[in-house]
Amino acid sequence: MNLLDYLPGIPDFLKPGVLFRDISPLLANPAAFKEAIRQLDEIAQQFDYTHILGIESRGFIFGSALAHHAHKGLALARKPNKLPLASHREAYGLEYGNDSLEIQQSTLPKDAKVLLLDDVLATGGTLIAADKLIRSAGFEVSGAITLLEITFLNGNELLEQNRIRHQSVLKS
Amino acid sequence: MNLLDYLPGIPDFLKPGVLFRDISPLLANPAAFKEAIRQLDEIAQQFDYTHILGIESRGFIFGSALAHHAHKGLALARKPNKLPLASHREAYGLEYGNDSLEIQQSTLPKDAKVLLLDDVLATGGTLIAADKLIRSAGFEVSGAITLLEITFLNGNELLEQNRIRHQSVLKS
Repeated sequence: MNLLDYLPGIPDFLKPGVLFRDISPLLANPAAFKEAIRQLDEIAQQFDYTHILGIESRGFIFGSALAHHAHKGLALARKPNKLPLASHREAYGLEYGNDSLEIQQSTLPKDAKVLLLDDVLATGGTLIAADKLIRSAGFEVSGAITLLEITFLNGNELLEQNRIRHQSVLKS
Repeated sequence: MNLLDYLPGIPDFLKPGVLFRDISPLLANPAAFKEAIRQLDEIAQQFDYTHILGIESRGFIFGSALAHHAHKGLALARKPNKLPLASHREAYGLEYGNDSLEIQQSTLPKDAKVLLLDDVLATGGTLIAADKLIRSAGFEVSGAITLLEITFLNGNELLEQNRIRHQSVLKS
């Protein structure tokens, strides 16, 4: 099974020139979704971690199923004003605009080791913000995993410069 | 294990007078999260369904882990302008404001039987909108499940009036 077959590219969605990857066909197919979570778990096992950080909102989808499957905790990095006890915020630039992420420090144990998860690695801006967010809240970052890395944007290089170890299931 | 212990109430978050239920402690605890998904699966088995509809964005979290666990498909009901091939939109009133949900009809098989899922049943407005959305796109709605029903808001009565069969893991 080639998982990329279940992630069709949609040209010019959200911004002209951007090939948006539609995750809906993968989610709608139980065998493809199961295989995606199996492969995410395989790369996650290369990291020593206690909690997965799901980044709103497509990161919630893969983060939740993976945390449940791997018997780990799930932490949420949310857009502003969604978390009742949010304690830390980090702004960042996206491929298409600017945004911020928040977490709830009080929910995680002090010795949490957090594995960052997002569906797609594009420029790397979101994961770098998530890394700063977790470290500013006093937790250890184990690394970052994604389902798909869009290689021509060189996000992985930027992650390396920021000393964030990263693995992706797929490259395109 | 009493799952309500992992869903602390936060008074006056989002709107004065509303007791917001914080799901973060449940998600951060692997045993509690596992038990929540096990109990959601138990009530889901009372319905004949092929796909779970996760409602943005806390419904994504429980919907994803449950779909993966139960080997079902996951469909997404998203806020406007997030789905690249969105085909149907339904507006609705929330406990705190108004919003809309969209789905991608082309992603689901024609004979899909959709089980609606959200974390909390409050007034019922979100689930009624989700039900209309799925039916207007031509699919069958199997019913609706939630993790927590807030009984004094009588949402379940409104669902019954709309002929939506509903089960909740917890009541408060």
